[in-house]
Amino acid sequence: MPLSPEIRADLGRFLSTVEASSGIGQGRPDGLSRLTLSDSDREIRDLFVRWCTEAGLQVSVDGMGSIFARREGSEDLPPVLVGSHLDTQVNGGRFDGVIGVFGALELVRRLNDLGITTRRPIEIVNWTNEEGARYSPPMVASGCFVGAHPVEWAHGLRDEDGVSIGEALDAIGYRGAAPVGGREIDSYYELHIEQADQLDRTGHQVGIVTHGYRSHGIRVEFRGETGHTGPLPMERRRNALMAGARLLVAVDDIGWEHAATGGKATGARLTASPNKAGILSDLAEAVCDVRHERPEIADAMRDRMLQAIQAACERTGCEATILDTWSWGGDIFDRELIATVREAAAALGYRAAELPSQAGHDAYFLAQRFPATMIFTPCKDGITHNNHELATPAMIEPGLNVLLHAVVARADRR
Amino acid sequence: MPLSPEIRADLGRFLSTVEASSGIGQGRPDGLSRLTLSDSDREIRDLFVRWCTEAGLQVSVDGMGSIFARREGSEDLPPVLVGSHLDTQVNGGRFDGVIGVFGALELVRRLNDLGITTRRPIEIVNWTNEEGARYSPPMVASGCFVGAHPVEWAHGLRDEDGVSIGEALDAIGYRGAAPVGGREIDSYYELHIEQADQLDRTGHQVGIVTHGYRSHGIRVEFRGETGHTGPLPMERRRNALMAGARLLVAVDDIGWEHAATGGKATGARLTASPNKAGILSDLAEAVCDVRHERPEIADAMRDRMLQAIQAACERTGCEATILDTWSWGGDIFDRELIATVREAAAALGYRAAELPSQAGHDAYFLAQRFPATMIFTPCKDGITHNNHELATPAMIEPGLNVLLHAVVARADRR
Repeated sequence: MPLSPEIRADLGRFLSTVEASSGIGQGRPDGLSRLTLSDSDREIRDLFVRWCTEAGLQVSVDGMGSIFARREGSEDLPPVLVGSHLDTQVNGGRFDGVIGVFGALELVRRLNDLGITTRRPIEIVNWTNEEGARYSPPMVASGCFVGAHPVEWAHGLRDEDGVSIGEALDAIGYRGAAPVGGREIDSYYELHIEQADQLDRTGHQVGIVTHGYRSHGIRVEFRGETGHTGPLPMERRRNALMAGARLLVAVDDIGWEHAATGGKATGARLTASPNKAGILSDLAEAVCDVRHERPEIADAMRDRMLQAIQAACERTGCEATILDTWSWGGDIFDRELIATVREAAAALGYRAAELPSQAGHDAYFLAQRFPATMIFTPCKDGITHNNHELATPAMIEPGLNVLLHAVVARADRR
Repeated sequence: MPLSPEIRADLGRFLSTVEASSGIGQGRPDGLSRLTLSDSDREIRDLFVRWCTEAGLQVSVDGMGSIFARREGSEDLPPVLVGSHLDTQVNGGRFDGVIGVFGALELVRRLNDLGITTRRPIEIVNWTNEEGARYSPPMVASGCFVGAHPVEWAHGLRDEDGVSIGEALDAIGYRGAAPVGGREIDSYYELHIEQADQLDRTGHQVGIVTHGYRSHGIRVEFRGETGHTGPLPMERRRNALMAGARLLVAVDDIGWEHAATGGKATGARLTASPNKAGILSDLAEAVCDVRHERPEIADAMRDRMLQAIQAACERTGCEATILDTWSWGGDIFDRELIATVREAAAALGYRAAELPSQAGHDAYFLAQRFPATMIFTPCKDGITHNNHELATPAMIEPGLNVLLHAVVARADRR
């Protein structure tokens, strides 16, 4: 049965977990630089596992290092999964991902306080490598969980130093014994900061996330030929760095063309070799993506991005190989789950807005196989992936309580 | 007095020095990767010094690590300086620079064979960091030699790993006691592969280098702000990587506009930070240059390049700082020295062409203060800064002999 509206999360207890997290893997002032499977990631994982164990939860780690902490229900039914991620960008904030994991922890601690056993089990999850900052593609562990990626392939992904995910899991002791996915999940809820400014700008307290922007990403390699930057005639050059730069600019132009309707496109990463003064590069690698709320426009932007790869090759005499592609979003979240969020927000008296998610989230992969949805807190000025990212306690509290009430309603449903 | 035309360099002896060099700092097949002041640079320097000592030359090393090997003349006059560089690009060839240093060594060995003492001393030189592959700007030691750069400033330049030139000189034991420049030089000759295909294409055996392309280079830093590659609206983004990519593409476009008249422009290097998927970069650094045979066109191309920095900033919301600029070339070589080369080629019966240098060379800096010129050998298909760079013995022999005869004529002049 639904919780009484007077029941609220313990905000202070929740904030103490965020505060502890803010001290692990510190980056620039007020920010975090806690790359997935790093030593600081191990530290926050160890702390999270300890807290879960102290809360009486049964902890397991799967072969991708994702951590599950289970609170049994009164019936033998598939669990409601609730969580997010504890890894951050190189210049990340203190709230992105973190509040979703510790919001779920506060939820079960509150149920413990009240001695409430839900009908279905509730499981907290911390997904490995959501950010994609160390390993491309992002959200790789939730992708494996739903069978979108083979686990063997994911283990072989390498960071810039050549360290594979498999090796990094072993290094921090988080290659777990639990199978990756392959089991029934009742539903998935994820509390997250909005990472855009719609809630903050309009004064809404909580976001009911109805769908996700459709996003298409690529990682592409260009091959050319070294040569002298001086005498070699323009028409004989095969500068792979220039092919990459031309792709990045073309992708940015695609974003600007769709800016008026909220479209975005990004050249996020470009590396080249030798990448030195005096010599043309014979190898370059670029990471780009395009995003739009309307899937058909996002798909058209992707087609333009792919054409831009060809145009960059034709202009520079290079050859391209697409190394990775990823897509997510679209009309993905579950109507029944969205209704539980809407009802909880209404019962608790919060000003709620229905809105899309613009960023990528593990919830997108979960939604491929299970009912899933998200709850957004406001995010100051929409600033994120930046040490100035800010969600004040007052900005988080409504989402935290909506998560508690929506999840319990779902877990208890007949 | 001029040497008799029958006197020729010992091609076999010269080739043995190039062959020894080709085994030190090997890179890709048939190529070299012998960055300045590296361990392999030390190895070739040590070998060069040993050969010079065995040839009875007096070796000194200046504060920039440039090596001078002096053969006294019969009179106390400023020396004729002859040389080039032994450092290479990351994917460099076996001939670029190398034949100029060992061509000078063969010259003095031949004079030793013949027991000839020239009127003026002859000094061989190996300049530090001609390539600019490890330290920007290129030709930094010859620039210091003529007073174009302060030595203290050059010692403080750092490579990608943060190692300064001063530290690197100490590490390989080549921070010499000799003052950097500050002395009279009669003249400077440099034998070099053409690095373009004009001689190879037209069947000329030797190049009389009359002037250099005018070249302008910049190293520029862009500063932006990190942020999420997804939700952040296009108009709020300040992606420093995109500013760099836009500059590179604009510079490439400038090159294409002038391609019909032999102009070139290059985006050679672009780095960014964090430069990762999912996050906008707040820092980027680009190295670009423009070149044209006509100085006024090269200057106009430079102005366009500087405007492109501003345009990139305006489009991306970033700020730019120009960290370095360098310029060289123009109508620089000495008419009298050019005449000695022309006369030597004619006396030896070679098919010679008068042509400009398109690449940068230490000779440009020497020409700022002293009479200077260059002699080019053909270069197969103009391929250079590439392991497939090739100048066969038959392609080098004419230039080697012209160097011998022109330098002796100059050294002996009344």
